[in-house]
Amino acid sequence: MALSEFEIIDCYFAHATAERDDVRVGIGDDAALVAVRAGHDLAVATDTLIAGVHFPAEATAEDIGYRALAVNLSDLAAMGAEPAWATLALTLPAADETWLNGFARGFAKLADRFGVQLIGGDTTRGPLSITVTVHGWVPAGTGLLRSGAKGGDAVLVSGTLGDASLALTLLQAGELDASTHRDFLSERFFRPPPRVALGEHLRGRAHSAIDISDGLVADLGHILERSLAGAVIEADRLPYSMAMRECTSPAQARQHALAGGDDYELCFTIPRQLEQEISLWGSTHDLRLTRIGYIVTEPGLRVVDAQGHEVSLESCGYAHF
Amino acid sequence: MALSEFEIIDCYFAHATAERDDVRVGIGDDAALVAVRAGHDLAVATDTLIAGVHFPAEATAEDIGYRALAVNLSDLAAMGAEPAWATLALTLPAADETWLNGFARGFAKLADRFGVQLIGGDTTRGPLSITVTVHGWVPAGTGLLRSGAKGGDAVLVSGTLGDASLALTLLQAGELDASTHRDFLSERFFRPPPRVALGEHLRGRAHSAIDISDGLVADLGHILERSLAGAVIEADRLPYSMAMRECTSPAQARQHALAGGDDYELCFTIPRQLEQEISLWGSTHDLRLTRIGYIVTEPGLRVVDAQGHEVSLESCGYAHF
Repeated sequence: MALSEFEIIDCYFAHATAERDDVRVGIGDDAALVAVRAGHDLAVATDTLIAGVHFPAEATAEDIGYRALAVNLSDLAAMGAEPAWATLALTLPAADETWLNGFARGFAKLADRFGVQLIGGDTTRGPLSITVTVHGWVPAGTGLLRSGAKGGDAVLVSGTLGDASLALTLLQAGELDASTHRDFLSERFFRPPPRVALGEHLRGRAHSAIDISDGLVADLGHILERSLAGAVIEADRLPYSMAMRECTSPAQARQHALAGGDDYELCFTIPRQLEQEISLWGSTHDLRLTRIGYIVTEPGLRVVDAQGHEVSLESCGYAHF
Repeated sequence: MALSEFEIIDCYFAHATAERDDVRVGIGDDAALVAVRAGHDLAVATDTLIAGVHFPAEATAEDIGYRALAVNLSDLAAMGAEPAWATLALTLPAADETWLNGFARGFAKLADRFGVQLIGGDTTRGPLSITVTVHGWVPAGTGLLRSGAKGGDAVLVSGTLGDASLALTLLQAGELDASTHRDFLSERFFRPPPRVALGEHLRGRAHSAIDISDGLVADLGHILERSLAGAVIEADRLPYSMAMRECTSPAQARQHALAGGDDYELCFTIPRQLEQEISLWGSTHDLRLTRIGYIVTEPGLRVVDAQGHEVSLESCGYAHF
């Protein structure tokens, strides 16, 4: 029997996520009502996932539920915000209970980890599409913007780059399952880790930050555009995973790292004197943080090799349209 | 030439809506940052429109832009909230500039009227689908809920009922264009008026409220379910427009009013002694407010005719799944 809209929300989502004290009215009224935090700014981000565009057919319902929230939490991380609430607009071709169970499990697992309560949403019938809006808090005036990079800043990234792009390439070639790095790469592509703790630590430290969803060149490019600055990326400093080093040539690795999307690592710029403190924070939090270059006052993004020679960019990342 | 995601946002939306002092960072970063209002609760609502489900092929891009925001503002109205900000997730088969122009115009016109600033969003390629999330303010603890109806309350509705349903019926039969009430009915269906001022006036007065999106029986039913109460609707008190009276039989009119969705009027319950004050407010604000029945302690919704005989419900409104 088909489930009604109300049953879907009640069965799968109303009590699936964290329960927060600041939620006065959650799912089930015309709108949610939440208490606000004095002296803080509210961060609001929205991302949509479309079947076939933002996840491949191989993604499980649980992967999709995880990803729908993860990409949004990554946006909050890039602002330095502490996650609080989410809304979920779910468009489904049919109310498949197995799928809904998996989706809700993936969504709720991540929501719980970050103390996020689902406070509302809408379910409609149509081609599979998921839009999540997330809300988080930063002390007033401390949100991390794209616009603050300054000449001389060190450019850092979290984690390793290009893994999601490599995973997708192998998946599309039918070679992922046979890879010895299958589990690692699947995790990197299907369950990217939102770097929330790092984002919070960077408040008051980083001059600018962005999450890498469209590829390093494209996303660092947004920082440069907003900051009216340029950057030099030292290609030999790009951080690669063991999977990347073993599965591809150096040239392909560089391409994945520069142009491949979906890593959801943070790229940020800091004053050089903070580099050591930030690196130490990374070590104690088991998160690799790598300086990959520096900000310059002259606009434009240049990639140089170990000899300082400029490397041409074959691709400038992924554009949605 | 195809527009990139960033051009779409910049061209059509970044400066299209109201500019609010409480927006610290609007469109263009990983998330928006907004200032909060001390002593207030934040209301958050999300609604999705799918082509062919929530609007017919005859809807213009401007109608769709209007409607995407209107149905969400209607949710805020039902909470008694003062609108503040919106995010927009727009999935399009292609970046058609004429369509985008119209959509943005319809969206922005309504946003301006209610002082709403668009603070973020996402554009993706796929089957046409629009998800809007709106935010608004109520003084802490004063939000209108579905759950407060009390035995003896008067049940009131704003405006006239069933017009949107009648319009859709005529449209689907190819008879709307020939109707002398074409303009009125098109307006009622394509551009439903969010009853924001009424909602704000009802704070501290109404015991419960909801907006009528799925039909009076279904939506009043939600109030009853949440309030653990029942209601009697006096069918001969249902407010009809002149178009309704002239285009349909009394039986059809009743059916449109009880089961037809998409009116986006408010249905609310108030202590009987406030009825006169609320009616007066309606008169001075050029908004018809009609008592259509009353709340009883015994659960269930009964419709009675002028003689007090119970009328059977042929339909119980529209369920999404």
